[in-house]
Amino acid sequence: MNIKLENVLPMEIEKRSFELIEAEMTTNPPEDIKPIMKRVIHTTADFEYEHTLTFSQNVIEIAKEAIRNGACVVTDTNMVRAGINKKKLAEYGGEVFCFMADDDVCEDAKKSGSTRASASMEKATKLNQKLIFAIGNAPTALVKIRELIDEGKLKPELIIGVPVGFVNVVASKELILETDIPYIIAKGRKGGSNVAAAIVNALLYSL
Amino acid sequence: MNIKLENVLPMEIEKRSFELIEAEMTTNPPEDIKPIMKRVIHTTADFEYEHTLTFSQNVIEIAKEAIRNGACVVTDTNMVRAGINKKKLAEYGGEVFCFMADDDVCEDAKKSGSTRASASMEKATKLNQKLIFAIGNAPTALVKIRELIDEGKLKPELIIGVPVGFVNVVASKELILETDIPYIIAKGRKGGSNVAAAIVNALLYSL
Repeated sequence: MNIKLENVLPMEIEKRSFELIEAEMTTNPPEDIKPIMKRVIHTTADFEYEHTLTFSQNVIEIAKEAIRNGACVVTDTNMVRAGINKKKLAEYGGEVFCFMADDDVCEDAKKSGSTRASASMEKATKLNQKLIFAIGNAPTALVKIRELIDEGKLKPELIIGVPVGFVNVVASKELILETDIPYIIAKGRKGGSNVAAAIVNALLYSL
Repeated sequence: MNIKLENVLPMEIEKRSFELIEAEMTTNPPEDIKPIMKRVIHTTADFEYEHTLTFSQNVIEIAKEAIRNGACVVTDTNMVRAGINKKKLAEYGGEVFCFMADDDVCEDAKKSGSTRASASMEKATKLNQKLIFAIGNAPTALVKIRELIDEGKLKPELIIGVPVGFVNVVASKELILETDIPYIIAKGRKGGSNVAAAIVNALLYSL
C-alpha cells in the first residue's frame, strides 16, 4: 500500500473533520449558525451549502427552545428518522414521526391524487404536540405544509426545508420562505435526508 | 402565491426528474451505468458525480448477478439500511445488515481502539452469504474491508464505496480501487448514505 492514511484516533475523527471544514470555509456565519453549517458540510463534503443555507431571524434560539420544550420532529423519509439522534431528542421529551409507510397515508394519497408525503403532512395536523418539520426529500411535503399554514391548520415551531431534486424543489422552498414560520432552508435544488438529519442533530448538539 | 409550481402527477414526478437529469448531463455513460448515475444525481442534485463515480469492468452485470443469486447487503449506517428497497431485495432472497449499534461491535471497537464501523466489517466476515458492501459514511469501514480482503478473510461480490468526509475518505477509496474486487466508487470527498442507498436501489431497479 502506497496510499497514506492519516493517523487519527476514532474519537478524534469528527473533531479533526470539523477543524478541516472550518479552515476551508470561505464565509463567516454568526456563531449560533456555524455549528449547523459545519455539520451539513460534514455530512455532504459540499461547501455550496455555505451559500445556500438560509436562516430566519433568531431561528437557532427558537429551535433550541422548542426542543427544550419537548417538540417532536415530523419527517418525510425513514432515512431522516434513522439519521436523527433519537436518544438525544428523547432527553427533552421529543420523538420522531414518519408517516410515509402508514396504510392510511397510502390510501389518502391514492384517494386525493396527491403524494404520500403530502398525505403525511395532513396526518401530522392530528398530532397534539409542538412540531418541527424536517423535510429532506419531497417538495410536495413543503407545498402541503404551506397550504396547511395558510388554512390555519398547522403552526410549526420550525420548518427544516431541504428537499432535493428537480421537480418543484426550488419553488417549494420559496413557498416556505414567504411564511412567518421560523425556517432553515437550503435554497436551490440541493438537500437530502442526510442534510435534514444533520441539521436536527446539529441543533440537538448545540443544546 | 406568485411562485409557480409545475403541474406533475405524483406518479410522474420521478420520470420527469430523470428526463431533466438526462437533459442536463454532460457525459454519456454506457447504457448499463446510466441508470446508476442518474439515480445518484436524482438523490443529490449534484452533477459532479458524473465525473467522480468510477466503475470496475462489467460491474453492473456482476452486481445484478450477485443480487439475483441472493446476495445480502452489509452497510455502515442505519440510514443506508432505511434507504434501501428491502422488499425488492428480498424478492431475490437478500437482506440488509447493519451492525453499527450492536453491543458486541461497540465492545470490540473499544477493546481494539478502532471504530464501530471497522468492528462491523470484522463482524460481517462471520456471515455465511454472498455479500455486497454499501459504505456511505465511514472510511474506516473501507480500510478494514481492504485489510480483510488482503488477509483472505473476505471476498465481497461488490463494494459500493461512497463514504463522505474529510479524514482518510479519499485514501480509503483508493485502497479499494487497488483491489480486484468489483467496485462502484465515488472518488473524492463526496458520497453519503443517500448515495449508497441510491446505488443499491438503482441496481435493484435495473433487474
